[in-house]
Amino acid sequence: MLTRYRLHYAPDNASLVIRLVLEEMGVPYETVLVDRRRNEQDSAAYRALNPNGLIPVLETPQGPIFETAAILLWLSERHGQLAPAAGAPERAEFLKWLFFASNTLHADLRILFYAEKYITPPQADTLRAGIRPRLKQHLQLLDALAKRAPAWFCAECPSVLTYYVACMMRWMALYPAEADRSWYALPDTPAMQTILAQLETRPATHTAIAAEGLGPAPYTSPIYANPLEGSAT
Amino acid sequence: MLTRYRLHYAPDNASLVIRLVLEEMGVPYETVLVDRRRNEQDSAAYRALNPNGLIPVLETPQGPIFETAAILLWLSERHGQLAPAAGAPERAEFLKWLFFASNTLHADLRILFYAEKYITPPQADTLRAGIRPRLKQHLQLLDALAKRAPAWFCAECPSVLTYYVACMMRWMALYPAEADRSWYALPDTPAMQTILAQLETRPATHTAIAAEGLGPAPYTSPIYANPLEGSAT
Repeated sequence: MLTRYRLHYAPDNASLVIRLVLEEMGVPYETVLVDRRRNEQDSAAYRALNPNGLIPVLETPQGPIFETAAILLWLSERHGQLAPAAGAPERAEFLKWLFFASNTLHADLRILFYAEKYITPPQADTLRAGIRPRLKQHLQLLDALAKRAPAWFCAECPSVLTYYVACMMRWMALYPAEADRSWYALPDTPAMQTILAQLETRPATHTAIAAEGLGPAPYTSPIYANPLEGSAT
Repeated sequence: MLTRYRLHYAPDNASLVIRLVLEEMGVPYETVLVDRRRNEQDSAAYRALNPNGLIPVLETPQGPIFETAAILLWLSERHGQLAPAAGAPERAEFLKWLFFASNTLHADLRILFYAEKYITPPQADTLRAGIRPRLKQHLQLLDALAKRAPAWFCAECPSVLTYYVACMMRWMALYPAEADRSWYALPDTPAMQTILAQLETRPATHTAIAAEGLGPAPYTSPIYANPLEGSAT
């Protein structure tokens, strides 16, 4: 019987969002490194936890959960924190933006980062070029939401969604390392910028910085991770 | 004050999933056609409901909801039907596959259908070719899940997820009309085939067939919609 959550992580991977949220909730957990340099995410042992071979997996008393947003939503329900509960008046609005973040922003980010999984390499940069204007548009929608500042998406009220979007914005600034990243500029989304700066003051962020070597301003002025163990890519 | 749900739909669009689930739940609703031939999904009025200009939107007492899976989850919570509730032991497993369906299967389907939104047209077919093996793999994972037959993903127990996946499989068989569709074959996923055949016996499916002109076997032997009003593309 699992007595505490077990987070399968790689530094600065999507598992970072789960770490931040577990820290923010004050819920105990342990971590297991997935060594990407050895492609451990493709191992039989890891695929038994997630048949897609993607990071993260959170082992829970209800079994292993994958899909970042599914873990986020489940944790918020389980611990009654960081999201409007099922039945709350703000639930509809929250769910639509959580799914948007997962199904549109994160899905498009995966194409940007791993274009070669979608198209043969000579065309990968063309595909990236097509994705960037989409990402800019998604960010504008999220910035408009941040400007409206519902109680689950504002600077003073961290939620599973604020951490999720903050990490995705960090990754847009950094990855892919070898591709054009000049298209992304945090001041283009001033309301999000305020949220990100605020999240950098949270103890949860400080713990994650120490654990994964993220540098002093991981959302507003990100640098590549310099982790104690494992590797980001 | 909205007295009943209002579903903004186009025939055989993602709104079909919402219609099926509302019917299965026995919840009253009305429909508003979004005329795709006039690009009404891009109109200012429609974008006020969904800034992404995508179908469907469900107007609810909590405001308009977009993102198909968000609507499905919210309806299941609101009416206590067709999904494990928040707090139930099967919730983790259900959420991870719902997000997988939305964030991986549906996201990849959008690329297959609208490749030109991601890459310049000469490369669109190359992108489609890269997506097909991914879709086949996603379907194998869902078939393995169907074989395990949890209480929310089996032939005798329709859920929001079974309807969602059934519609996506319908669309894979039909779209894009001008592209190669020989890669998709329902017998490759026998457990899903059983679920789909069972869903075709449900009154909800019969109502949707009549409303949107879907033909006698919309999941297992789909033909192009011949709707009373509007158009699918």
